Formats: sequence, C-alpha cells, structure tokens
Amino acid sequence: MKILLVGANGTLGQSVRAALRERGHDVLSASRKDSDIAVDITDPRSIQAMYERAGRVDAVACAAGSVPWRQLSELSHQDMLDGMVGKALSQVELVRQGSPLVSESASFTLITGVLARDPIFTGTVASLANGAVESFVRAAAIELPHRQRINAVSPTVFTESLAEYGDAFIGFEPEPVRKSAQAYVRSIEGHQTGRIFEI
Amino acid sequence: MKILLVGANGTLGQSVRAALRERGHDVLSASRKDSDIAVDITDPRSIQAMYERAGRVDAVACAAGSVPWRQLSELSHQDMLDGMVGKALSQVELVRQGSPLVSESASFTLITGVLARDPIFTGTVASLANGAVESFVRAAAIELPHRQRINAVSPTVFTESLAEYGDAFIGFEPEPVRKSAQAYVRSIEGHQTGRIFEI
Ligand SMILES: NC(=O)c1ccc[n+]([C@@H]2O[C@H](COP(=O)([O-])OP(=O)(O)OC[C@H]3O[C@@H](n4cnc5c(N)ncnc54)[C@H](OP(=O)(O)O)[C@@H]3O)[C@@H](O)[C@H]2O)c1
Ligand SMILES: NC(=O)c1ccc[n+]([C@@H]2O[C@H](COP(=O)([O-])OP(=O)(O)OC[C@H]3O[C@@H](n4cnc5c(N)ncnc54)[C@H](OP(=O)(O)O)[C@@H]3O)[C@@H](O)[C@H]2O)c1
Repeated sequence: MKILLVGANGTLGQSVRAALRERGHDVLSASRKDSDIAVDITDPRSIQAMYERAGRVDAVACAAGSVPWRQLSELSHQDMLDGMVGKALSQVELVRQGSPLVSESASFTLITGVLARDPIFTGTVASLANGAVESFVRAAAIELPHRQRINAVSPTVFTESLAEYGDAFIGFEPEPVRKSAQAYVRSIEGHQTGRIFEI
Repeated sequence: MKILLVGANGTLGQSVRAALRERGHDVLSASRKDSDIAVDITDPRSIQAMYERAGRVDAVACAAGSVPWRQLSELSHQDMLDGMVGKALSQVELVRQGSPLVSESASFTLITGVLARDPIFTGTVASLANGAVESFVRAAAIELPHRQRINAVSPTVFTESLAEYGDAFIGFEPEPVRKSAQAYVRSIEGHQTGRIFEI
C-alpha cells in the first residue's frame, strides 16, 4: 500500500515507519521538516497542499501532535485552544480533507494516548485533546464513505520516552514504542474500524 | 448554596433549576438572554464579566452548549472549530476562569452526552466535543485547588427532546430530563470528583 505517515521522524513515527516498511509498504513521510512532504497539520491549507502532493494514498497514519504541558492554574485560554488545534483538530482535519481524496478502502489511523482515560498532573490539555480524538474516531467510523476505516492508537508512555516524560508518568507501566507501531500495522492491514487500540 | 447555573432556561437547565431550588439552593441563572446574568460562554471576556457580576459562588453548573449537526462530508473546518468552542472550550473556560474565584469547596458540573461513547449519524462534532469534556473532567479533578471538585453529566436523549432529536436517536432508550437534573444535585451536594455520571 501507499501510506502517508505524518510525523515519521518522531519517536513513534520512526518506529511506525520501520514497521510499515518491514511489511513492504511504500511510506511517504510528512512533517514540518526533513520529510518527503512539508506540512504543518495545524494549518488546514498546508494539509490541502500535502494531499495535492501526495496523490491518492491507501492509508493515512498520524504520529504527530503536540500540546502545552502546564498546571491547570497556569494555562491560558490560548493554551487550551493551541492544544485542541495541535493534537485534535489537526488530526480531524486530516480525515475531513482526506476522506474524499484517498482510495475507497483507505484507512485513517490517529494518535491519542492514555491521558484520555487516566490523567496526570499538568496533563489537562493532553487529556482534553485525546478524549476529543477518541470520541471523534468512534463517530467518524460510522460516516466514512465507501469502505474507508478509522482507528486510534492510544499508548501509555513509551519506554523510549522515559528520559523525557518519565517523571510525569510515575507508576505507569511503560511500553516499548514498537508495540504501538504494531497497532498501526493492525489498524492499516486489518479490517476493524472505530476502534481505540489501547497499548 | 449559591449556585451559578449556565443555560438555566433550556430543556435541561429548567429541570436542573427546579431540582436545585427544591433542595433550597439559591440559583443564579446565566445565558445569552432572559437570565439573571447575560453571558455568552463562547467568549472568554463575557465569562469574566459573568464571574464579576456573580461574586463568589459555591457551585458552577453548566446546562448549555451547542454544536453543528451535519454529516462528516458536509462539515467545514469552521464547523469543527465552532463545535469545539461551543460545547468544549466554553465549558473548560468556565472552570479555568472560575476556579480562582469560587469558594474553596466549590464544584463544577459540566454537560456532555452519550455521543462521547456511542455515535450517531451527523454527530461527529458532538462526539468530538463530548469526548474532550469527559477526559478534561477526569484530568481537572486531580488539579483543582483546595477541596474543589468537578464532574460531568452525560445523558442519553431526553424523553422531552424526542420531538426535536428523536429521529437521530432511533433505538436509544430515552430518559426523562429530571434524571439528569438529579445527577447535577448529586454532583453538587455529593463529594465525588472526576466522575462522569452516565444517564
Ligand atoms: N512519547 C510518548 O511516550 C507518547 C505516549 C503516548 C502518546 N504519545 C503521542 O504520540 C505522538 C508522537 O509522540 P512522539 O513522542 O513520537 O513525538 P515526537 O518525537 O516529538 O515526534 C513528533 C513528530 O511529529 C511531527 N510534528 C509535530 N508537530 C507537527 C505539525 N504541526 N505538523 C506536522 N508534523 C508535526 C514532528 O516533526 P517536525 O518537527 O518535522 O514537524 C515529529 O516528527 C504525540 O501525539 C504524543 O502525544 C506519545
Ligand atoms: N436535549 C437532549 O436530549 C440532550 C441529551 C444529551 C445531552 N444534551 C446536552 O445538554 C445541553 C443542554 O441541552 P438542551 O436540550 O437543554 O438545550 P436547549 O434547550 O437548547 O438549552 C440550551 C440553554 O443554553 C443556553 N446557551 C446556549 N448557548 C449558550 C452560550 N453560548 N452562552 C450562554 N448560554 C448559552 C441557552 O440560553 P440562551 O439562548 O439564552 O443563551 C439555553 O438556556 C447541551 O449541551 C446538549 O448537548 C442534551
């Protein structure tokens, strides 16, 4: 399959790219820098330009997304909006614009995270965005045209990210990022839709 | 208790107001028109003015919120943003601005809905917004200062709203709105926090 992978250079994205290549897929990478296609998914026009360059693909996978990490009492209204756009609306827009352009049996695989269900201190914006995407995935699954599908991968903290995020996830059992990459493979090659793959 | 109720004139809000008055509470109503305090919760400055007028309250309850109802293929990017603001960010902003101003043991009770977990056709924006608020509630619960609490009420379609929304909720068991109103009482007078009361 021809697969458009957004955020292919990140901790998760690199692992997803490797897993998809191992399965023989043709992976087109997209992100703000050092990718096959330059895109900023927080900008709807940039997403449009990305789809124009990518042409018809058989799967869209997103391993990008960023939110502000701060205590609720220190978050501004703009932080809330930035997080919503940075991780939720950006991914929704990949689906909204992508659906009419991708192949008839294409899949969308989005990224959320454990904070949708289990909170951590300074994680309110991440929770807000992850919860939005997970409910959106369940809803979009029943409306996508043809045989198009959509799922989300919802991981706990990656073993590979413990140095960066470990202090915030004390007591959470980390999982190697390749487990989440396998969930992308399962979403893309499998036949399920509207599923949240909790890792 | 002195309770600020946003959306007190709606189907849900009227029932919540009646239930709170029955319990002897002093209810201050707020909405765009015909309320004690005029507020548009989609505008952060309007929320600020509302809290200035309300003074210190012991509970904030929201029974407002609106989203576009349209098929995914007919939704614009602006619709997605409008729904996010109209039902999710507006309620988040009630908490963000309210927390430093309300009493030390005050509670926030927000409104979501069954579409967070079970989708219906034309409901993707509602799902997106409801999912956001439910995950936010779980996360904010562990960060609110003092003994402040936060919960959400997540109802199925109201029996009283069947004429308006029944066609979209075929096969869903409706529930009388007073059951949801009781969940507000439980949230406000009880001691739980971070809970989603599914009705
Ligand atoms: N790390 C964890 O333990 C963990 C756990 C659960 C969930 N997650 C979620 O998994 C996702 C990836 O996490 P990660 O740790 O792999 O992040 P990361 O290493 O920072 O990688 C993020 C990738 O996304 C791209 N990107 C970021 N913003 C973008 C934008 N606006 N437009 C286009 N591309 C963008 C970045 O490339 P450019 O800079 O070139 O744009 C980068 O390749 C995030 O949504 C995160 O919340 C992570
Ligand atoms: N109806 C159902 O079956 C059902 C089921 C599950 C969940 N819900 C949720 O419950 C909530 C209330 O539903 P409802 O059927 O009672 O709605 P409704 O009858 O339309 O009442 C909405 C109330 O909110 C106020 N309001 C709307 N937008 C506002 C804004 N931007 N700022 C301030 N006030 C605003 C309105 O007053 P003004 O016009 O004066 O502003 C009105 O009092 C909604 O969030 C809905 O999604 C409803």
